[in-house]
Amino acid sequence: MSTTERQRKTPVAVLGATGAVGQRFVSLLAEHPWFELAALFASPRSAGRPYGEACAWHLEGPLPSAAAKLEVRSTGEDPPCRLVFSALGADVAGPLETRLAAAGHFVVSNARSHRMDPDVPLVVPEVNPDHLDLVAAQAWEGGLVTNPNCSTIGLVIALKPLADAFGLRRVLVVTLQALSGAGLDGPSAWAMTDNLVPVISGEEEKLERETGKILGRLEGGAISAHAARVSAQCTRVPVLEGHTECVSVELEREASSEEVALVLAAFRAEPQELALPSAPERPIEVLADPDRPQPRLDRYRGDGMAVSVGRVRPCGVLGHKLVALSHNTLRGAAGGSILLAELAVARGLVDGVAAPRVA
Amino acid sequence: MSTTERQRKTPVAVLGATGAVGQRFVSLLAEHPWFELAALFASPRSAGRPYGEACAWHLEGPLPSAAAKLEVRSTGEDPPCRLVFSALGADVAGPLETRLAAAGHFVVSNARSHRMDPDVPLVVPEVNPDHLDLVAAQAWEGGLVTNPNCSTIGLVIALKPLADAFGLRRVLVVTLQALSGAGLDGPSAWAMTDNLVPVISGEEEKLERETGKILGRLEGGAISAHAARVSAQCTRVPVLEGHTECVSVELEREASSEEVALVLAAFRAEPQELALPSAPERPIEVLADPDRPQPRLDRYRGDGMAVSVGRVRPCGVLGHKLVALSHNTLRGAAGGSILLAELAVARGLVDGVAAPRVA
Amino acid sequence: MSTTERQRKTPVAVLGATGAVGQRFVSLLAEHPWFELAALFASPRSAGRPYGEACAWHLEGPLPSAAAKLEVRSTGEDPPCRLVFSALGADVAGPLETRLAAAGHFVVSNARSHRMDPDVPLVVPEVNPDHLDLVAAQAWEGGLVTNPNCSTIGLVIALKPLADAFGLRRVLVVTLQALSGAGLDGPSAWAMTDNLVPVISGEEEKLERETGKILGRLEGGAISAHAARVSAQCTRVPVLEGHTECVSVELEREASSEEVALVLAAFRAEPQELALPSAPERPIEVLADPDRPQPRLDRYRGDGMAVSVGRVRPCGVLGHKLVALSHNTLRGAAGGSILLAELAVARGLVDGVAAPRVA
Amino acid sequence: MSTTERQRKTPVAVLGATGAVGQRFVSLLAEHPWFELAALFASPRSAGRPYGEACAWHLEGPLPSAAAKLEVRSTGEDPPCRLVFSALGADVAGPLETRLAAAGHFVVSNARSHRMDPDVPLVVPEVNPDHLDLVAAQAWEGGLVTNPNCSTIGLVIALKPLADAFGLRRVLVVTLQALSGAGLDGPSAWAMTDNLVPVISGEEEKLERETGKILGRLEGGAISAHAARVSAQCTRVPVLEGHTECVSVELEREASSEEVALVLAAFRAEPQELALPSAPERPIEVLADPDRPQPRLDRYRGDGMAVSVGRVRPCGVLGHKLVALSHNTLRGAAGGSILLAELAVARGLVDGVAAPRVA
Repeated sequence: MSTTERQRKTPVAVLGATGAVGQRFVSLLAEHPWFELAALFASPRSAGRPYGEACAWHLEGPLPSAAAKLEVRSTGEDPPCRLVFSALGADVAGPLETRLAAAGHFVVSNARSHRMDPDVPLVVPEVNPDHLDLVAAQAWEGGLVTNPNCSTIGLVIALKPLADAFGLRRVLVVTLQALSGAGLDGPSAWAMTDNLVPVISGEEEKLERETGKILGRLEGGAISAHAARVSAQCTRVPVLEGHTECVSVELEREASSEEVALVLAAFRAEPQELALPSAPERPIEVLADPDRPQPRLDRYRGDGMAVSVGRVRPCGVLGHKLVALSHNTLRGAAGGSILLAELAVARGLVDGVAAPRVA
Repeated sequence: MSTTERQRKTPVAVLGATGAVGQRFVSLLAEHPWFELAALFASPRSAGRPYGEACAWHLEGPLPSAAAKLEVRSTGEDPPCRLVFSALGADVAGPLETRLAAAGHFVVSNARSHRMDPDVPLVVPEVNPDHLDLVAAQAWEGGLVTNPNCSTIGLVIALKPLADAFGLRRVLVVTLQALSGAGLDGPSAWAMTDNLVPVISGEEEKLERETGKILGRLEGGAISAHAARVSAQCTRVPVLEGHTECVSVELEREASSEEVALVLAAFRAEPQELALPSAPERPIEVLADPDRPQPRLDRYRGDGMAVSVGRVRPCGVLGHKLVALSHNTLRGAAGGSILLAELAVARGLVDGVAAPRVA
Repeated sequence: MSTTERQRKTPVAVLGATGAVGQRFVSLLAEHPWFELAALFASPRSAGRPYGEACAWHLEGPLPSAAAKLEVRSTGEDPPCRLVFSALGADVAGPLETRLAAAGHFVVSNARSHRMDPDVPLVVPEVNPDHLDLVAAQAWEGGLVTNPNCSTIGLVIALKPLADAFGLRRVLVVTLQALSGAGLDGPSAWAMTDNLVPVISGEEEKLERETGKILGRLEGGAISAHAARVSAQCTRVPVLEGHTECVSVELEREASSEEVALVLAAFRAEPQELALPSAPERPIEVLADPDRPQPRLDRYRGDGMAVSVGRVRPCGVLGHKLVALSHNTLRGAAGGSILLAELAVARGLVDGVAAPRVA
Repeated sequence: MSTTERQRKTPVAVLGATGAVGQRFVSLLAEHPWFELAALFASPRSAGRPYGEACAWHLEGPLPSAAAKLEVRSTGEDPPCRLVFSALGADVAGPLETRLAAAGHFVVSNARSHRMDPDVPLVVPEVNPDHLDLVAAQAWEGGLVTNPNCSTIGLVIALKPLADAFGLRRVLVVTLQALSGAGLDGPSAWAMTDNLVPVISGEEEKLERETGKILGRLEGGAISAHAARVSAQCTRVPVLEGHTECVSVELEREASSEEVALVLAAFRAEPQELALPSAPERPIEVLADPDRPQPRLDRYRGDGMAVSVGRVRPCGVLGHKLVALSHNTLRGAAGGSILLAELAVARGLVDGVAAPRVA
């Protein structure tokens, strides 16, 4: 890549850069064709040290060398660029993100703090790209958009084509969620060996409410939630990455299992049309093998951005059932946020930042 | 225990004694107050050797010394006692079990081969003890009764008090099943590390059909299945023992979560009234902690014979949801079969064998 | 047990009662024939609440009901009984344990703080019971004795009969240590899934130095360390309980593998002669199967108090090699401390407390 | 890559292509700059079907599409190309590999059958490339070279620079080996959960003997083994990939830990000088962090071809100790074999095949 190209890249900052999701951001942004890591923020404890020292890198590949040399800044300082990714914990994210938006930054947040705010879009690029229009009405000089909870993302991507093709009435989902969803200091190995935990605090409510907002309709400057009823049970299992979801759905119109599978496999949306850099070619991969998807074998499909679906079959209670799998820290967190930023840029919502390919 | 008492014990045989469930039978029967291990059967390959040598013992405690000395006999030979437990694989169990029943034995089977036969009772002692009356009408000189699939047992015990108190319309269950359910040569460590498998071959059908039969009614010498619709998704997770089931139910009559929990906790049935040796004091233990039941921490409640239930709460789709856990090779296999044999003896169905306490 | 018997039991206290080792103390002392739980101590945060509420019980069996009702006291308060078990962390144990000893208590400590103090015996009852004589010379009104590190215990029990029979020159040990050794808040499941960690901070030094002191000689009121050179490499593996140790030893006199195995299997010591309640019948169980010992299958031998040894064979470098396994929170911590207290009582070292059987 | 380049690639065959190591071969050769997959062989059961159907692909990435379409041939048929990789089991490899060599093929074998044959070189390219000269004296029209056992490779790469710089007297190694080393049908998840196995059949002998041959000297057309004494203990742990080895060494000349670490880090050899496609830039990466190497975090260093070494420190018994980690199915099997083939080609040992870069 020439110097000219490099200079044209948009500088971005990451808040909460040393955590599980923050490291995924750094890893993905190190090689991003549009964005360039300009600043990394973490708690004051890490501030002032090179990222390579401040961060206990936990991903399989090496810490990207350019990022390793960046000096970590203290959360709260003003980022030196417009576009800001937030991987902050919800305890910190709330007031900080709005302050940044007010100060003119365009914040793409992975935190739960503002997801359900009426004026903040909660967006999965393949599902509800139009909700980004809410940004125009935001009171801030900058903007604030949010990425859903990691378990919500896999579900809504699988539900969207069904809702469009057949109408959606009721959804029952049981999740088997990976350890990385709990962060680097999640449950102890003692607690999770030869064991599982049948609850994830607050997760079921998030899954149920966020799904409604994302599948909802933007009308008259407000989002009205989708009417489908969603009920979730969330469990934590000893798997490193990849949330598995056992889903039963009741559709408005009759459909065979084959039709359901075909509609899922055929699904394409705006990110695919725009050929956004992080968009998987196929948002949903329907697997034919009866024992798939499996987290370790299928979580990296579409570079971790595709949802794998298997076992589409009749459900004697609600009509249809299937198993969906998505990578919770790629599609479900950092990768999803970056795709969302790409979409916002492509739609011209980030002042002063233009999409290279679209431009 | 005095010599007189010891002599009064009923001799029993175990078929398929070297497998995962067979070993549980041997472990439980070694200390049983009513029964005494008289003969152990396995494949011809193991026959003729002492059980202690023929068997690759895999349980945490030591192989009981009396059993270790028993010479393994070849499956197919006639057992030297009336009461016979079958832990055979379904490939072998079918014709063999009926032949033994015809030859006068009372066979308590853990195999799936005859579970759905119209003249063979499929019994969970706390749920449908009256179905044992079917034995009287069997064509064989002896008898044949069956224990359900390991994942069915935990479910029907949790459903029974709800069906009685509130009526049962629809059930949706997702299981997270333990490794031991697949036997000693189950999935490889390679396949199950950092992974789970979203299918167990044939399991969902078993769970759905067996539940109907067990909750059904015995009328005019035949069992009519319960009308409730049941839909299951079964997964295998890296847990040694203990099946976890995420259940949603639709009841006929309205009930609060508190009422549902109370009815479950208060459940007692015939095995408790008869104080059968393997009957847990409380068939269902309702746990208050929001993060329970967990397989490693709760599977041994009631000596592995109690079903642990937690997280009873409203379900936005079907009305109520909860998590149930049961030990799949104790309550769900060997322990359940032994309790069933105790019930059959107590009800006077095994010719020539009387229950010590009842007598 | 009659009221009279119950009254004759010696009251004991446990410091650090809510942690991983503290829970093992509570579990073992709940059914102890000599001792009775009189008081449980933990951090001020837990103080004032019933133990059953203050403690996140993590063992498979239920929390003993008598202990559940005891009100937790704040560490630092004076225990209401002479005999005190300390499961405190080393950060707290140092000054507190000596203060208690000065105040007249007999402290049996599992902490590392005083293990290497010249006037404090570091004792494994089967290995160096005579070192307890050091207590007589202690400056305190009470006494203070210590239990070694969990990985040291399995090693020295296996080395002792070899040192006695053949002389010991050099020892090389690589440990594969269980998760419970790191406490309830040990390494995260994220860190330990599909992984191991090749270091345990400070552990190698402890193993090397403690072994010398325990195998050393008490002469003229002081302990001179054994001259054998010991080198250790310690790793953490994803196993719940049970430390596996791969040991190579150089002996002073020649011996065949058979002789080594026989000497190990024949080992008996003072706790066995005195028939102390927690003493295993055989301190070392030598296993013939070539693939044993295995942590899950063998850690509970001798009720978790026996060391399992397998694979005794020639070593081309040092002469002999073998694999040893011991339960790290039973023999290696709480169980070992209780056996040590039994030994101290039997030897008449605890003022006013006599051993029931010996008396 | 242009058509011209593609045509210049050397066609190769893989025997045993559906197993754990075979799949690694297929994965690596699919993108190889010099070689091109021309034929895949497996048992007659798989023969005649497309590889994509015959093979239960178990690697994280997708099955390479070109390979998926290749029709599997039956082992025993003559390969349609000179260069043949063998991932056969030792039960089949012995006579078959020599027959192929006699028929003019150049066989690079990963099987143990011929490793210790006097006229067959056992080569790790960075350690003993000159041993390849043995091929010239082989009686066959083709040639046969072998790759060592997966646990030997990591060890000898770490030992080689030490032997060269300081002389090597004695080596004691304890291995913690990954599941993939046992193949796809290795130990069951039941056997390996919350457990480890302290033996791998035949492994210790292989490690001890192969190390001597590889570090040995080729003189007068024969290899004389290195005089260093090696003793190994091998264990299986629940890790997917990556063998960890805890090594103690006695050197002939004195050296500090710093000198040992420097010599390891500075190691380069013929594959690096020739810039062979599969050669890692640094054969040994010395890690400074005290808790490294860890299998999950470090096994992919150098694309799975580097040996990671950490914790270089004094050993009170033998002088020096360290921890080494290598990827057992990449460097330790398929990757190592491919690098070996590259070396053979570069050295002009494969008739009619020239190295693109060297030529």
